[in-house]
Amino acid sequence: MSPVQVAFDLDAYLRDRRERVEVALASVLARHLEGAPSEVADVIRYACEGPAKRIRPILTGAVYDAAGGRAAIEGLACAVEIIHCYSLVHDDLPSMDNDSVRRGKPTAHVVFGPARAARAAAAMIPLAFEVLAEEARALGLTGATRQAIALDLAQGAGPVGMAGGQVLDLEAEGRLQTPAEEEGINLRKTAALLAAAARIGAHAAGAPDSAVEAFTACGRALGLAFQAADDLLDAPLGPADEATGAGARRGGGAGRMQSLAARYSDQAVARLRAAGIFSPALEALARFAAERDW
Amino acid sequence: MSPVQVAFDLDAYLRDRRERVEVALASVLARHLEGAPSEVADVIRYACEGPAKRIRPILTGAVYDAAGGRAAIEGLACAVEIIHCYSLVHDDLPSMDNDSVRRGKPTAHVVFGPARAARAAAAMIPLAFEVLAEEARALGLTGATRQAIALDLAQGAGPVGMAGGQVLDLEAEGRLQTPAEEEGINLRKTAALLAAAARIGAHAAGAPDSAVEAFTACGRALGLAFQAADDLLDAPLGPADEATGAGARRGGGAGRMQSLAARYSDQAVARLRAAGIFSPALEALARFAAERDW
Repeated sequence: MSPVQVAFDLDAYLRDRRERVEVALASVLARHLEGAPSEVADVIRYACEGPAKRIRPILTGAVYDAAGGRAAIEGLACAVEIIHCYSLVHDDLPSMDNDSVRRGKPTAHVVFGPARAARAAAAMIPLAFEVLAEEARALGLTGATRQAIALDLAQGAGPVGMAGGQVLDLEAEGRLQTPAEEEGINLRKTAALLAAAARIGAHAAGAPDSAVEAFTACGRALGLAFQAADDLLDAPLGPADEATGAGARRGGGAGRMQSLAARYSDQAVARLRAAGIFSPALEALARFAAERDW
Repeated sequence: MSPVQVAFDLDAYLRDRRERVEVALASVLARHLEGAPSEVADVIRYACEGPAKRIRPILTGAVYDAAGGRAAIEGLACAVEIIHCYSLVHDDLPSMDNDSVRRGKPTAHVVFGPARAARAAAAMIPLAFEVLAEEARALGLTGATRQAIALDLAQGAGPVGMAGGQVLDLEAEGRLQTPAEEEGINLRKTAALLAAAARIGAHAAGAPDSAVEAFTACGRALGLAFQAADDLLDAPLGPADEATGAGARRGGGAGRMQSLAARYSDQAVARLRAAGIFSPALEALARFAAERDW
């Protein structure tokens, strides 16, 4: 039987991995917020609270496993989730998207006020680097590996990565984008942090450079698939859709998004297989990214 | 002659060190923003631009020297300055202090818009950790030292440090604070990052733990002295001052601030000497912190 055809219960996998991430995240926050004033710790805990999909730390874990890692990597992977959660708080601010609901609950700035939410969210960035450094030490990773994953997180989150993409996204707002420009923004805004999540898993497992690059490409394509699937929800209805109503959001912008998502998902799998990596979990994650709203 | 009485030309020292920091900062930004979109890189360069006092990286260098370090530490020290500069952009935002002038120029949000300035400033935090990691590697620091300085920066900038203090400061706004509460806020808001600057210099030089703690205490006291001297400018005029006009801002709140600044400055020097450390540069910096607006 080819590994490609292995039956893989993605729902059970995600359930199990989410549970592990939740436990690790609670423990990481308890330890690293110990000396922090409750005025800031309360906001950070709230910002990290579920229900959430935890796709980034799950990706780190799936790559780590596929690269032969055998330790519990969830604590380390929480560093990536903390970066993601800070970015959601900033996304939701009145000066940004001005959203009042996130994960079915009032957004952080609704609960704590915009200034406090913004400040506490910024505090989560150094916190993520602290978590990364401490968990890497606890795992006994080498100095070279610790250096590599610190750069992975910094570049995934910083000016060349997610935060750079957010600025590009702001600047592109309200004007027509070419497909290449759109992909360029999404590569940074969404894919860079997922690529970093994958790299951290690969580096932590001691993967050789060629495998690190394949996992990175997989994470990046998975991020683009995810972004395209996410954009489906906001895509304009085509003429056919308008006739059939809100139930069918296909056609026009949506149809393009859907085929884009499928193409990126294929790329994610292809990049792994080209490197001789057959991971049922990663392949299922890649398919899942293109098919539904995470 | 006791080292205490060594004549020390602080002005010449600051001039020389500022120049070194400016050169290192320009080089660090050029290298680490190479792959970043100009839309974010432009804001970051602007936010880091002088004229600025560069006291934090100068402190890192002074501690490094006093602890026996012999390499060029300015690149590493720029990580602390980048954290400081991001915090100024966030301080100035319309949703925070709403300041339109900083360092004699329009604030970043006036030039680039609040959303772009806020996003780019957040990007500076991972950038600082990238700079720290890369410069530490270039200096050939050991894995243990690199781990220590990553924690120094994370804790100085994060929820237990500067960003935690900023949240406390927000929450205390508009209500009367006890002196202990005020010191608690300033310890985090201002002193934590100066303490981190000192720790990074000490760790980079390979100082023993007892010396690291003395340098940390010095940096912390110097930060409190600086904050008290800074508060002098905003302190309410006492009755005597009101009579003499704006030229004399002493008495009342100002008088208390001035004696506080002097006390912290004495502490900074005392903590060093108690550990057998006699550094003309650090002692001059401590005196300077209490005496004037940096």
